[in-house]
Amino acid sequence: MHKVVLIGAGRIGRIHASNAARHPRLQLAGVIDAIDASAQALAQEHGAPVLTLDQAMDDADIGGVIIASSTDTHLDYSVRAAAAGKAVFCEKPIDQDLGRARAASAALSSARLLLAFNRRFDPNFRALKAKLDSGAIGTLESLQITSNDPAPPPPSYIAVSGGLFKDMAIHDFDMARWLLGEEPVQVYAVGSCLVDPEIGRLGDIDTARTVLKTASGRLCVISNSRRSGFGYDQRIEAYASAGMVRADNVTESTVQVWSEAGAAADRFQNFFLDRYAEAYRQEMDHFADMLDGTPAAVGYADGVAALALAEAAARSLALGQPVAP
Amino acid sequence: MHKVVLIGAGRIGRIHASNAARHPRLQLAGVIDAIDASAQALAQEHGAPVLTLDQAMDDADIGGVIIASSTDTHLDYSVRAAAAGKAVFCEKPIDQDLGRARAASAALSSARLLLAFNRRFDPNFRALKAKLDSGAIGTLESLQITSNDPAPPPPSYIAVSGGLFKDMAIHDFDMARWLLGEEPVQVYAVGSCLVDPEIGRLGDIDTARTVLKTASGRLCVISNSRRSGFGYDQRIEAYASAGMVRADNVTESTVQVWSEAGAAADRFQNFFLDRYAEAYRQEMDHFADMLDGTPAAVGYADGVAALALAEAAARSLALGQPVAP
Amino acid sequence: MHKVVLIGAGRIGRIHASNAARHPRLQLAGVIDAIDASAQALAQEHGAPVLTLDQAMDDADIGGVIIASSTDTHLDYSVRAAAAGKAVFCEKPIDQDLGRARAASAALSSARLLLAFNRRFDPNFRALKAKLDSGAIGTLESLQITSNDPAPPPPSYIAVSGGLFKDMAIHDFDMARWLLGEEPVQVYAVGSCLVDPEIGRLGDIDTARTVLKTASGRLCVISNSRRSGFGYDQRIEAYASAGMVRADNVTESTVQVWSEAGAAADRFQNFFLDRYAEAYRQEMDHFADMLDGTPAAVGYADGVAALALAEAAARSLALGQPVAP
Amino acid sequence: MHKVVLIGAGRIGRIHASNAARHPRLQLAGVIDAIDASAQALAQEHGAPVLTLDQAMDDADIGGVIIASSTDTHLDYSVRAAAAGKAVFCEKPIDQDLGRARAASAALSSARLLLAFNRRFDPNFRALKAKLDSGAIGTLESLQITSNDPAPPPPSYIAVSGGLFKDMAIHDFDMARWLLGEEPVQVYAVGSCLVDPEIGRLGDIDTARTVLKTASGRLCVISNSRRSGFGYDQRIEAYASAGMVRADNVTESTVQVWSEAGAAADRFQNFFLDRYAEAYRQEMDHFADMLDGTPAAVGYADGVAALALAEAAARSLALGQPVAP
Repeated sequence: MHKVVLIGAGRIGRIHASNAARHPRLQLAGVIDAIDASAQALAQEHGAPVLTLDQAMDDADIGGVIIASSTDTHLDYSVRAAAAGKAVFCEKPIDQDLGRARAASAALSSARLLLAFNRRFDPNFRALKAKLDSGAIGTLESLQITSNDPAPPPPSYIAVSGGLFKDMAIHDFDMARWLLGEEPVQVYAVGSCLVDPEIGRLGDIDTARTVLKTASGRLCVISNSRRSGFGYDQRIEAYASAGMVRADNVTESTVQVWSEAGAAADRFQNFFLDRYAEAYRQEMDHFADMLDGTPAAVGYADGVAALALAEAAARSLALGQPVAP
Repeated sequence: MHKVVLIGAGRIGRIHASNAARHPRLQLAGVIDAIDASAQALAQEHGAPVLTLDQAMDDADIGGVIIASSTDTHLDYSVRAAAAGKAVFCEKPIDQDLGRARAASAALSSARLLLAFNRRFDPNFRALKAKLDSGAIGTLESLQITSNDPAPPPPSYIAVSGGLFKDMAIHDFDMARWLLGEEPVQVYAVGSCLVDPEIGRLGDIDTARTVLKTASGRLCVISNSRRSGFGYDQRIEAYASAGMVRADNVTESTVQVWSEAGAAADRFQNFFLDRYAEAYRQEMDHFADMLDGTPAAVGYADGVAALALAEAAARSLALGQPVAP
Repeated sequence: MHKVVLIGAGRIGRIHASNAARHPRLQLAGVIDAIDASAQALAQEHGAPVLTLDQAMDDADIGGVIIASSTDTHLDYSVRAAAAGKAVFCEKPIDQDLGRARAASAALSSARLLLAFNRRFDPNFRALKAKLDSGAIGTLESLQITSNDPAPPPPSYIAVSGGLFKDMAIHDFDMARWLLGEEPVQVYAVGSCLVDPEIGRLGDIDTARTVLKTASGRLCVISNSRRSGFGYDQRIEAYASAGMVRADNVTESTVQVWSEAGAAADRFQNFFLDRYAEAYRQEMDHFADMLDGTPAAVGYADGVAALALAEAAARSLALGQPVAP
Repeated sequence: MHKVVLIGAGRIGRIHASNAARHPRLQLAGVIDAIDASAQALAQEHGAPVLTLDQAMDDADIGGVIIASSTDTHLDYSVRAAAAGKAVFCEKPIDQDLGRARAASAALSSARLLLAFNRRFDPNFRALKAKLDSGAIGTLESLQITSNDPAPPPPSYIAVSGGLFKDMAIHDFDMARWLLGEEPVQVYAVGSCLVDPEIGRLGDIDTARTVLKTASGRLCVISNSRRSGFGYDQRIEAYASAGMVRADNVTESTVQVWSEAGAAADRFQNFFLDRYAEAYRQEMDHFADMLDGTPAAVGYADGVAALALAEAAARSLALGQPVAP
């Protein structure tokens, strides 16, 4: 059993706490949160103590730190935990600022750090990558990544989100890098505000298309909207020399109703905690593997690279031209 | 060009006339109907003459006769046309009475007669049979034939229909024989009147399940209802030693709407003339092949055998026990 | 927290133990198994003690007993636990002998007993029932229950299984009763041995069709095979006055490969512990609800009724005639 | 009956000839082709005379001219036929040169000219547009148009094709205009040569993504490849404020094979003459309507506008920047 502590008892922190607590090789050994009541509530739920950051860092029995606090603290906590010799599970994004993120390179480049891009652990996307890697459809040529949220967040969230590219598309940039097999060398982004005018007043967009191109000419389109109108819409199509492999949305059940109107399937899963429940479990399982010695499947450098693409997309949007990332 | 004449200018006759007229190797050389106005209208539409039966039979240039008149005339016209040396295209059923149908054996057993079980010519069911015959899923073990009409016919039709088994399930009995590769040796039927009480008052049923068993133990269930609630419902599942092959319903288009309610496909085709438009064309093409010398793919003996199964099902229903056909 | 004990540390017992141990309102307070090593191993895995049956029954703090031992012990343990005032979670079937099962009526009719027909807790079948109950497709008229195992069990299992109807179709009889809304009054079964001749030598069948009819004329076909050739095949179609609702098989992922051969979906789930993992969790959750006072959703009487239908099917098969259950 | 003549007896001309000849309101009254043998063969097939262009233009009984000759002749024949007072059915593209096409404005702007963008007449895309126009999914926000050929044409064709944008994507630009409800004001294209290096040596690309933006901010991505690896791949997704509507590829049949590998659908239609057989029929039917007085659904101005977008895409590709069309 590896002892791990959680920093950040918010919504996503509670998911990770629960997965760690239920994992056969992990023990949730402490909860840390700036808001004492939040820490107490979550700690009590899992029979774990509330700790201070210092206590956790100084306890040599604690092998892993799960960082699910606010984005602006991700880097500092990661550096601190890495320095203390802990394995780090850090929520995405690594930071909202590429310069800051890169500046942590000395501290984090060789840390045992899992950057928690949950989609890499989703069974559907993993099955897609396995098909691609198997060579069953030949050599990859292009990608279509569709990633639409069910509904836009409140303006208060938008204001501190870092913008659509860093907040939402960051996952898609990571998916693109994971699947393309080459780094994008050119980024073009175009965007509009079509969903909620308030998002536009805050200087952000809610609808975007980003086109990536790699050195060998592979193309990738990322389609984003803050609102799909039909639930959580996360699909990937990978086109290759001998066919295509796609991962589709997930429905609530396999039930269909056939009526005069035709065949109607059940609703698409609407909430990311449902859609990615298994991905979060697999991600925590991978963290347990890391504590057993397995290298991180996705780490600090991936977090920086995805952030660089997000910044490039924002720059392209501002300039109205393709840019190098 | 082979000259063919049509007997019976009703709904199905008009389909066959149109397909014959457009066929590159057929010429619609005459229309025969007891109702002169019907014959005139259809003949004019295709620039063909109205003929009497005698004229058609006596004209040695006429090679084929398409019989689409009322069911009680099918046998007589077939015998007459066969005796005149014509190739015969006879609408199903061969007759409503098994004794009568069998009595025509001497006259029709070796006639060039296509019994127009249109489903044998449907591209979907043909593709299913091709898969089965290819051995791709091993040896056939059982069949599920689902055959539901969009809506019940008027009681006036029910009264002269010959009953659900002879009128509607006759197609399914033919499909069963075509696919099973063995003759059924046992028939069990159960039925209810759930759709329209008037059908029950006329002594018929509107909902049925028929179970066939062959000598080697292959099983087939035929599911029938006079009303599906969702269009023309005609599906087959064939289970074999290495998997299953199925043919599904046909939709109006490939369009789907994705909304909060989920993914909704377009309507299923509702009308048999839409659903089987291509089957009717292929059937006529096969008749052209017969006029070129190809043997009939489905003939008199098949019509009798399907009718025997329909009678057996009716007998089983009446007795409440399985029977031999 | 309700304390529960498990009797029977075999394959299905281990699933229930794990679900109980992880349930927020349940505590696995003991493991009982005739084979001490099995009991020890499972108990240790969950940090629970090994108990004798007497210890468990005498401990007033233990509120619930999960019976996952061999079929021939289900009734005795249920009676004993009910007499001790425990809530009972009893694996299906209630027994292999209808007379014995009925004889326990006095002891079990009003017991707090959950008969663990897991499919009632499957999210897909629950969604199907919810649609049906919502009236969205009108009044139920007929059911098609398809239930095929991936591959036949070894002959040694067949020999003690009680036969296809009691061992395998018992689930389907329960589904039929759950959905039909009326008790079947007539049962007709036909069967063959097509999958494995050894099954036939043991006096059993491996392929069957059973037709049920209720007093109002509702029809239900149950299709069974010991081997599907394509994984765990468990589907239901419910036909009603305004359409149809169906629950389909579950695939390993949403991934499709599109190639010259067409679109190929991922494999169907093959193993019942995968296919019904969520059903087993929901079932245990319901048991927790029972310990909080909720009546059992499916109990002793349901177990007896499903067994009666299984015996009727076996009788019909032997007689070659429909029978009353 | 309206008399129409065909100019150009090549592959697509033969399709139009056949559809005109079978149309109940059209009579194929002549075939014109620079290669006499081609004209003779097709004319004979339909019992029509071979004509010279002058004969056709001078014959006041001929109401319509179908232009299916080589692209460089489309404009001249259209101008000539319009001047002769004929209704014109002109194959796409209107021309390969935007300047030339625009120069014909005086002659063709008010001509009765159907520019034969066949996809506008495809039942699937029409059903998609009908859903969109119905308001069922709210206000359109963005489009994904996927358009991949089964396999690349020979280099000899590429050399005279006008390039991927004018030859292949021209259809997609028309679809975009048809569905967007607004003219694109910005075009960005990126492309690669990934399918066949010979295409690159000829200065063309075989893989492209084009992003269109309208004045109100609607976005459209067009994805093109000269080779799909799985047949004719032509799909559209339209995203709107209340959901999405999509049109999918068409399969050869509804047959599926279920095996250990999962469910495999039948092949996608591979050949454009199969995929769009009905579209070609509907297109000719619309031409018949035009001869009865209906205005053209898609005409000269649409041909010029699609060509302008194709030229803009080529310019954007060359410049590496978005451009105005």
